[in-house]
Amino acid sequence: MSLVIIGSLAFDTIETPYGRREGVVGGSATYCALAASYFTSPYLVGVVGEDFPQEVIDLFRQRRIDLTGLERKKGRTFHWEGRYGHDPNHRVTVKLELNVFGDFHPTLPRKYRQAGIIFLANIDPELQEEILHQVTRPRLVAMDTIDHWIKTKRDSLLRVLKKVNIFLANEEEAKLLTDEVNLIRAGRKILQLGPQLVVIKKGEHGALVLGEDWVFGVLAHPCEEVVDPTGAGDCFAGGFLGYLDKARQPGQRAIKRAAVYGSVMASYAIEDFGIERLKNLQADDIKKRFLEFKKLVSFA
Amino acid sequence: MSLVIIGSLAFDTIETPYGRREGVVGGSATYCALAASYFTSPYLVGVVGEDFPQEVIDLFRQRRIDLTGLERKKGRTFHWEGRYGHDPNHRVTVKLELNVFGDFHPTLPRKYRQAGIIFLANIDPELQEEILHQVTRPRLVAMDTIDHWIKTKRDSLLRVLKKVNIFLANEEEAKLLTDEVNLIRAGRKILQLGPQLVVIKKGEHGALVLGEDWVFGVLAHPCEEVVDPTGAGDCFAGGFLGYLDKARQPGQRAIKRAAVYGSVMASYAIEDFGIERLKNLQADDIKKRFLEFKKLVSFA
Repeated sequence: MSLVIIGSLAFDTIETPYGRREGVVGGSATYCALAASYFTSPYLVGVVGEDFPQEVIDLFRQRRIDLTGLERKKGRTFHWEGRYGHDPNHRVTVKLELNVFGDFHPTLPRKYRQAGIIFLANIDPELQEEILHQVTRPRLVAMDTIDHWIKTKRDSLLRVLKKVNIFLANEEEAKLLTDEVNLIRAGRKILQLGPQLVVIKKGEHGALVLGEDWVFGVLAHPCEEVVDPTGAGDCFAGGFLGYLDKARQPGQRAIKRAAVYGSVMASYAIEDFGIERLKNLQADDIKKRFLEFKKLVSFA
Repeated sequence: MSLVIIGSLAFDTIETPYGRREGVVGGSATYCALAASYFTSPYLVGVVGEDFPQEVIDLFRQRRIDLTGLERKKGRTFHWEGRYGHDPNHRVTVKLELNVFGDFHPTLPRKYRQAGIIFLANIDPELQEEILHQVTRPRLVAMDTIDHWIKTKRDSLLRVLKKVNIFLANEEEAKLLTDEVNLIRAGRKILQLGPQLVVIKKGEHGALVLGEDWVFGVLAHPCEEVVDPTGAGDCFAGGFLGYLDKARQPGQRAIKRAAVYGSVMASYAIEDFGIERLKNLQADDIKKRFLEFKKLVSFA
């Protein structure tokens, strides 16, 4: 099996109540691939500029992330600057410089095209569609998006939705897409738009997974100090899809466990700025927190 | 064992997206006692006017709710009018007529004073304090409150908090009381104010229970149609404390199961206006939904 992750690699400048970091490495594909690398050896598709640090490339290699699909282009890497207040669920984008990401039109390497799982992280839905034309019968296609595309490219987004199996969104995005305030209703409406599975990420409230005739919920790890929420959703996707790739049989049981592993990875990501916490995780840390998640909801 | 519930009995006029009902019977003590009656035979303390319907008194009796502590006074019953928009977590109080509830100063019947569990539902914290002076060494004291008292009678509220074992609040109230946005931090701060257990009700996100060194979470039942959210929190308290009263040993395991039963009762309450759904519940309904809650979070 194999998991292809297509998304952004970036420099982020982040301000949270815990401090400010300038130009730390981030991006949806970065976070997602690092999280997934604890379960499988993902294939990374993205673009970086000449300024992207070699040590992060080395980290990717060390974590057995396949970089055949990573372009290095003349110019500067995508740069995002954001600020969080005391509520980690709300952020303000201060600056956005697309740079080399501006004309990103990836051609998937041959071995990527037959991958079992394709993850279209948050990028322009037209680009997501372009990529789907390049793959041959993946077992699973998953996608993420943000409010920006829901507001500005709804039609393209709805076209992509029809072609994917799993839709991951956060609470506000699911509500915005469906014009619903009730999350269960929002999830069911999205199921009618194409995907067989909807995963709604709810920050400190955890996540919901909706299938055709079942619902599963996972709580957030009880965390008192959200140092930097950036990338939490991407790490959820990485843990979720990384585990599914490893599990091979995407039945209900595997999907539920995958959602817990997604939450585990997200809960680690927010403990430090950028990708810091993801660099030095151990398999034991993941196992330990997985068991904590079980304890958190068990009442047998 | 025995559970004393002190709170309001009322006529409610309610408007939700599902319709409008005028003068249906409600009140925190009404909801709580009915919910608790599926687990134990609670003692009710409250006051009603001459206009309170005999059929509800009969319903209380039929559900083996002890009414020795229920006063009937000359005048009209407390009347509350409220409106909910599409978000069931937010309501607007349109009208409030205290009537006979205005000078409510209950004297607990002798047999109530030695009860094992005392529940101070949402009433003026000064009144809650008054009542605590009348009881002799209850095994557990639990309290609820609303934003109004947090804003206007914080000192009295903090005094009561010091004397109780369990504090139940909704998300906004817990945040308001502690000036925190992070729920885990809010819960831990409240633990430092007196109680050994804090239960935070989060509407469609379920509920969190925080003990000194443990956290437990229960999801909300996946509900697409919240017909009337009124009384959900009181029904949670009723199921929670009713089960604890029945369980006798309030260890961690019983507390966790109690929180699930609380969620079960709340999830039924919101399916219809006022107390309608609570009238005709069967033990089997409760058992069935309890198992559904288990399924919702199990990933073994």
